[in-house]
Amino acid sequence: MSNNKPIILLGGTGYIGSAIAQQLVATNINYHTVSRSDIDYTIRDPLIKFIKEIRPAFLINAAGYTGKPNVDVCEINKTECLQGNATLPGVIRAACEATGISWGHVSSGCIYTGSPNETGFKETDPPNFCFRTNNCSFYSGTKALGEELLAGAENVYVWRLRIPFNHIDSPRNYLSKLMRYESLLEATNSISHLNEFARVCVESWQKRIPFGTYNVTNTGAITTRRVSELINDKLGLDKEFCFFADEVSFMKTAAKTPRSNCVMDNSKLRGTGIAISQVEDALAKSLADWQWEHSPASV
Amino acid sequence: MSNNKPIILLGGTGYIGSAIAQQLVATNINYHTVSRSDIDYTIRDPLIKFIKEIRPAFLINAAGYTGKPNVDVCEINKTECLQGNATLPGVIRAACEATGISWGHVSSGCIYTGSPNETGFKETDPPNFCFRTNNCSFYSGTKALGEELLAGAENVYVWRLRIPFNHIDSPRNYLSKLMRYESLLEATNSISHLNEFARVCVESWQKRIPFGTYNVTNTGAITTRRVSELINDKLGLDKEFCFFADEVSFMKTAAKTPRSNCVMDNSKLRGTGIAISQVEDALAKSLADWQWEHSPASV
Repeated sequence: MSNNKPIILLGGTGYIGSAIAQQLVATNINYHTVSRSDIDYTIRDPLIKFIKEIRPAFLINAAGYTGKPNVDVCEINKTECLQGNATLPGVIRAACEATGISWGHVSSGCIYTGSPNETGFKETDPPNFCFRTNNCSFYSGTKALGEELLAGAENVYVWRLRIPFNHIDSPRNYLSKLMRYESLLEATNSISHLNEFARVCVESWQKRIPFGTYNVTNTGAITTRRVSELINDKLGLDKEFCFFADEVSFMKTAAKTPRSNCVMDNSKLRGTGIAISQVEDALAKSLADWQWEHSPASV
Repeated sequence: MSNNKPIILLGGTGYIGSAIAQQLVATNINYHTVSRSDIDYTIRDPLIKFIKEIRPAFLINAAGYTGKPNVDVCEINKTECLQGNATLPGVIRAACEATGISWGHVSSGCIYTGSPNETGFKETDPPNFCFRTNNCSFYSGTKALGEELLAGAENVYVWRLRIPFNHIDSPRNYLSKLMRYESLLEATNSISHLNEFARVCVESWQKRIPFGTYNVTNTGAITTRRVSELINDKLGLDKEFCFFADEVSFMKTAAKTPRSNCVMDNSKLRGTGIAISQVEDALAKSLADWQWEHSPASV
């Protein structure tokens, strides 16, 4: 980019934010990341002050509350979840509008459940796994509410991520999770290669694609069972993956709150000319380049 | 009270908070109120620090976001509305639990619509005018979400107010509104005499009634038409009140977002021994003691 102004990256040390930071470094884009202990960017006025100091060309919000180790924790820490996923994007919107800065927000495809047709949910489909449909986890409710707070904003990208994975073993990596969970839930999902997602975020701005919401998932969808087969094939493992009999049994024994499983249509994104790979190709490549965190014995 | 520790009152300068402050003064209870510019009590850590400094016997949250001049404004200022009505009670809960302080929260009966039976909605009825039922104003959605964030809390009163009024002409007073609106919507509502509401809040704590949620409305319900008759009768006016043909016409010409009209059952509150008057008595007394802000000519 010829633009010498930096980017502000919020949440730059998280799982998603780190990948975006890495992409910014790889493309020689100067960026500032900031921790909440230095500047409380969850409050409008300090955030506006920070934006005015940095005078960025663009801002990326990769901060949010996901719950560790999983989304069940959001049922307990509801206030943090609401603040991180709904109030925060609203505050950032206000700060960016006050300073005339365009920006992008990492949202989630977990505001949908199911598969409405062959190609999946489009950006024009209203969320069907949210407070408004009263069938969701608290996490999904807050992510959808966060998108509601951005409705009508004219200078924002909303990038919807779904179940991130890549080649690096990590507690947040979908592939690592599948390898270590005792039992799996068979479902069909669209999923997002983390580094492709990060590249899409940065390219959205670099290529100046139209502002708006984009489903940033790899093309297509895949079943849990197929992913488990790929793991065994590509990593040369012989792991026996156990599956819950059905969602009822999963909810009874392993989960406190329902999970979103859904198929998403990424054709709006592809229509911009930004590349994104087929889901099975992205998985195969991640597994071909796989880097264990500890050792295969922990699986 | 023999207890010499003070009370913390948040939002003590607002319409509801001022009435509570007045009640605390009238009953010789020492209290601290604080403005957000001095201490940002919407953030947990500064609030905890403040609580530890004051070491209060009790805390009352009368802060919230209602929208001025009316609830339609909440459809525009969604972030402030969400922060003030949902996140804030969650933050106060966290701070009060961390410091072992019991407290009370001013909530709203506007999370209901309609009249389920002769006596109205009980505290055990789930909200039916909220995000979860997807028929509400953004304001009502955030008030109901605020109550969700308090679910399971063991040391909190949730006092539900509905359409406040008293004898002092004011832009927030239901009676003043009815006198100045061009057209009225005929509906049946339970409503809250502001100073009785404030007394109930303080007495809840003084009398140590069980923690939990209370519908703090005057006993019974009343139609808009009947209130308009009382206004003319008691104030000796001869005003011709105009009414919308129906709710559809109201929504088409005067409102951006649906209003809650509902009947509430206050028997749980009355069961504690705390007095609250009949709705028509409370209205008659307010009108008998009526104090104009400017002059009757402005009506």
